[in-house]
Amino acid sequence: MTKDTKDFMMEYEEEGRYCFGFKQEELLYKGKTKYQDIELARTTLFGNTLKLDGFFQTSEGEEFFYHESLTHPALCAHPNPKRVLVIGGGDGGIAREVLQHNTVEKVTVAELDGGVIEFSKKYLKKIAGGSFTNKRAEFIVADGKQYIEDSKEKFDVILIDLTDPIGPARPLFEVPFYKTVKAHLNKNGIVALQSEPPIFKPKVFSWVNGNLRKAFKNVFPYINYIPLYGTMWSFTFVSENIDPRKLTAKILQKRLKERGVKNLKWYTPEIHTGLFNLPPYVQKLIKK
Amino acid sequence: MTKDTKDFMMEYEEEGRYCFGFKQEELLYKGKTKYQDIELARTTLFGNTLKLDGFFQTSEGEEFFYHESLTHPALCAHPNPKRVLVIGGGDGGIAREVLQHNTVEKVTVAELDGGVIEFSKKYLKKIAGGSFTNKRAEFIVADGKQYIEDSKEKFDVILIDLTDPIGPARPLFEVPFYKTVKAHLNKNGIVALQSEPPIFKPKVFSWVNGNLRKAFKNVFPYINYIPLYGTMWSFTFVSENIDPRKLTAKILQKRLKERGVKNLKWYTPEIHTGLFNLPPYVQKLIKK
Repeated sequence: MTKDTKDFMMEYEEEGRYCFGFKQEELLYKGKTKYQDIELARTTLFGNTLKLDGFFQTSEGEEFFYHESLTHPALCAHPNPKRVLVIGGGDGGIAREVLQHNTVEKVTVAELDGGVIEFSKKYLKKIAGGSFTNKRAEFIVADGKQYIEDSKEKFDVILIDLTDPIGPARPLFEVPFYKTVKAHLNKNGIVALQSEPPIFKPKVFSWVNGNLRKAFKNVFPYINYIPLYGTMWSFTFVSENIDPRKLTAKILQKRLKERGVKNLKWYTPEIHTGLFNLPPYVQKLIKK
Repeated sequence: MTKDTKDFMMEYEEEGRYCFGFKQEELLYKGKTKYQDIELARTTLFGNTLKLDGFFQTSEGEEFFYHESLTHPALCAHPNPKRVLVIGGGDGGIAREVLQHNTVEKVTVAELDGGVIEFSKKYLKKIAGGSFTNKRAEFIVADGKQYIEDSKEKFDVILIDLTDPIGPARPLFEVPFYKTVKAHLNKNGIVALQSEPPIFKPKVFSWVNGNLRKAFKNVFPYINYIPLYGTMWSFTFVSENIDPRKLTAKILQKRLKERGVKNLKWYTPEIHTGLFNLPPYVQKLIKK
């Protein structure tokens, strides 16, 4: 067994207090897109694995944790989601889970970095699961902020699938953007986003939560462990009209069945009903 | 920021597919006890941190995840826990949480490795939180298996806080030991144990679960992310008479209050009520 990290695809936390890595079998690509450093490798544990600007993004082996966590609490809480916007999400994983809900007439994915889409089509095919060629899906290379500002449409669900707020994604974690998002929601509209790790980045988590509260009335964070991110991650459910804690497992089960959603590996109606009960160490970070 | 793992206190997964580490400020001790390699260091993220035989065990900064996860679901599910046995747990963290329940008349900690107790008293004082000198606590240096075989006592709750089943702890994950444990439970008796990580060691998790099912009728696994273990971990609640899923948040809240349990950072009655709803990827591993 090797104990030398040169054989591992490594990530070092921004402040250098934590590192973790996965045994690398083969480097598939290393270079730059227009916006970001990109690195693709096959790892023993999770198969094809993507890093952007030095941070793990997704992998074939464990992507369901992240994609199910971001998609299904929001989609299942909406009584009839037809029009969905994904900001970011160029790997197609969120689109794949959204398309499982047969109520959805169209999902638009607005991804800033066309390079991510191209590399995902080539190296991460399993993640998109056919969504790149699905007629109900539209992939647009665009700045998500600009896209939504220019859009005259309203959406039932908006899913915000961004990299950390230290790179090009930062303005999309700030209040003006959240207000624009709010203006593009239908009645019963729901937003869900990845909102950073509460244990390793408590300040960033609190900051994102505070920004959301300045734009929206009802903000419901939830947490799930994401193997590729090396830690417990947070997501946030936002809606002016729908309280995700009030849905029973029976209703959620009915919706999954009617909409033809199958083969979930993480999400269940029972998990949904307990999802918004946060431990005190997380509650403390949002009581500001 | 350093990107060289020589500055980190590292752990390499047994099969070498995953590694992770914490920035090390100062090495406090490195040597051997009678049974195990021991390494103690101060890390930036979690303060004083203990490794045994190369695997992270506990740290001052995040120990509550593990200790609360193992202790409170079992103690709160018991209507009146008076006599508690901890097998392993020489750092005193489990004893500390058990002693929070003022119904407990005596907790006995049977730790194989006296060296762990000594090093914990010196370097991990915060974890024991006074339990080493508490009159209701008794720390014994003994093989947990031998201790319970020789004991004529019965217990309300038995908490099994062991290292991985690859070292000296292995026989304490096997069916004969579980049968002995069962024979030492009072009516309404409850056992809880750490039962290995379902994602990184699915076979070991399934094996432990199968062994428990051979000895006990009702086996309820649950999961929680443990920062120092670098992943989602599993615990298992076992009882012949008590179903931990049937307790309401109201009953659990009443018990916490009456018993004087305070300052919890992870456990809440609401979390308890959702705790045994497992995601399909974990359910799959126990449907054998």
